[in-house]
Amino acid sequence: GLALGLWRRQAALAAAREDEEEKELRQRFMAPPVSGLRELRRRRRELRSRMELLIMETQAEVCRALADLDPGASFAVDSWERKEGGGGISCVLQDGEVFEKAGVNVSVVSGLLSEEAARQMRSRGKSLKAKDGKLPFCAMGVSSVIHPKNPHVPTMHFNYRYFEIEEADGTKQWWFGGGTDLTPTYLNEEDAVHFHKTLKEACDKHDLKLYPKFKKWCDDYFYIKHRGERRGIGGIFFDDMDSPSKEEVFQFVKSCAKAVVPCYIPIVKKHCHDSFTPEEKLWQQLRRGRYVEFNLVYDRGTKFGLLTPGSRIESILMSLPLTARWEYMHNPPESSKEAEILEVLRNPKDWVH
Amino acid sequence: GLALGLWRRQAALAAAREDEEEKELRQRFMAPPVSGLRELRRRRRELRSRMELLIMETQAEVCRALADLDPGASFAVDSWERKEGGGGISCVLQDGEVFEKAGVNVSVVSGLLSEEAARQMRSRGKSLKAKDGKLPFCAMGVSSVIHPKNPHVPTMHFNYRYFEIEEADGTKQWWFGGGTDLTPTYLNEEDAVHFHKTLKEACDKHDLKLYPKFKKWCDDYFYIKHRGERRGIGGIFFDDMDSPSKEEVFQFVKSCAKAVVPCYIPIVKKHCHDSFTPEEKLWQQLRRGRYVEFNLVYDRGTKFGLLTPGSRIESILMSLPLTARWEYMHNPPESSKEAEILEVLRNPKDWVH
Repeated sequence: GLALGLWRRQAALAAAREDEEEKELRQRFMAPPVSGLRELRRRRRELRSRMELLIMETQAEVCRALADLDPGASFAVDSWERKEGGGGISCVLQDGEVFEKAGVNVSVVSGLLSEEAARQMRSRGKSLKAKDGKLPFCAMGVSSVIHPKNPHVPTMHFNYRYFEIEEADGTKQWWFGGGTDLTPTYLNEEDAVHFHKTLKEACDKHDLKLYPKFKKWCDDYFYIKHRGERRGIGGIFFDDMDSPSKEEVFQFVKSCAKAVVPCYIPIVKKHCHDSFTPEEKLWQQLRRGRYVEFNLVYDRGTKFGLLTPGSRIESILMSLPLTARWEYMHNPPESSKEAEILEVLRNPKDWVH
Repeated sequence: GLALGLWRRQAALAAAREDEEEKELRQRFMAPPVSGLRELRRRRRELRSRMELLIMETQAEVCRALADLDPGASFAVDSWERKEGGGGISCVLQDGEVFEKAGVNVSVVSGLLSEEAARQMRSRGKSLKAKDGKLPFCAMGVSSVIHPKNPHVPTMHFNYRYFEIEEADGTKQWWFGGGTDLTPTYLNEEDAVHFHKTLKEACDKHDLKLYPKFKKWCDDYFYIKHRGERRGIGGIFFDDMDSPSKEEVFQFVKSCAKAVVPCYIPIVKKHCHDSFTPEEKLWQQLRRGRYVEFNLVYDRGTKFGLLTPGSRIESILMSLPLTARWEYMHNPPESSKEAEILEVLRNPKDWVH
């Protein structure tokens, strides 16, 4: 009787704990984390776990902020597994009132990399010493592209990621990468300043050198070489970041991730009810075409993803707009609003000093 | 008096000859050939000249056949020069009644190639001995993509090209490449058979081994690896063709070029007034998205073009459709007409034996 009572009480406690966890999951995240909440709690002091929680939180924060602005639509949430190890959670809102296509994707993958693949992963191309030619790795990140319907609301992209690679002698290489950038169809200087200022503030808390360096890196990275223009008006971009320390870089990445909602959402709110003409919608569609060109021809993440066996194509190509357009020899007239944004894409400006 | 009379008569004769040439140009070609008609006449026995005339004729033939089917629209004709040497003629019909975007491009370029660029040009990657690291080359071709409006009319692509590279010791490497292939939105077996049969007949006149070999090469080449599907239902594709002899390969290429109109135009005529639903138009737009993916991620010609300094981007990206669409996780229902074409794109069929 006593033993049974005890067992019952324990079972009830366990069930209550699970309910609690379920509730917490529903409140905090879009889906259960890839590594499992219990496992993340167990190794809560490890940076891998803290980063996984950060990317899950960022996903949920951004999805909620977007869903609030587009109450008629809702996010489709897909949890997927990668048979080579790990998995991810893709959240996509498609054909809403405000957003044409908004995707926020988390992935946490691990396994073995060839030396060649490991070299390609790292932009600096450091060589890594492998045991039997294979390197155990772990890669995780949150990545998102938001394409709004209204041509006066810019497209926004962000991505924050963490890598670990174990070398033959057991030493672990680790680094962070990421960035947030804006792609307007038409230039609005006030928005550009707000966006860059919010990012600069997030950077400045950590080191005053970061914003100028990463702003320039962003302009250089999102360059559509064959067009001689950038994809958008930039933001910040960095890769291979492994100093001053793991903890400090993580805190910096956290500040950047927390800045996504405040740098973008006010711009969406401000313009999502702006009126627009069919000509403005057409120009947006042509700019969407350039977005596709950059992503398919130059973006390292996309190229790497498409070449990686077992990667989830739908999550990688989620970044592509719902619709795009290519017109032969389209050249906007001088001094038009279309020419104004092109000028800034050809010659990037400093938005904050 | 006599001298003046003679001069006048000669001048009148020269003017008449120029008028004749002008008339001939207008009748035969879309614009004056890059190398000039007189120069082409002067070296009329050289293969370079004969190939340039063939690609010019093919351009005009195809443009006229398309324009006949779309009387409301007309081709914009742009002659352009490449400052590094040579130039081209781009003919584009956009937003017609029958065609969404039809481009037929001729280019005749020459100059110096780096050893690296020369190696990339040739799919077999033969090494070439250069003088001072530079190789004089000449490349010419006609290339075309036709995107019709009606989802029951397939997209068609063709390209025929000729290369010459001069090695350090003066020996000339030369080869031909090309192909014609069809990308339907919906499968129509009768059309598929007509298209492949017409190509097979063009090949069979030269060598019975050519069609089976180049049909397979086409299925292999137009493979969208990350999707596990081909761009279309194929046709023929070949590269690096340099045997049995220059003359024989040229005659084969000529037969292929002459087959473009008969293999495609009857299909356009048959379906351009077919009725279609908004759902069929949507599926066409999604297939257009896959077309963009292939062209920007895999197509060697596009990639080579985008990387070549001084290449004309508008002519290279003319191949992209006017509009395209990407939906997250779009999966057509089983046994639908959409699933039917996907099945053939995943597992290519033999259309003629």
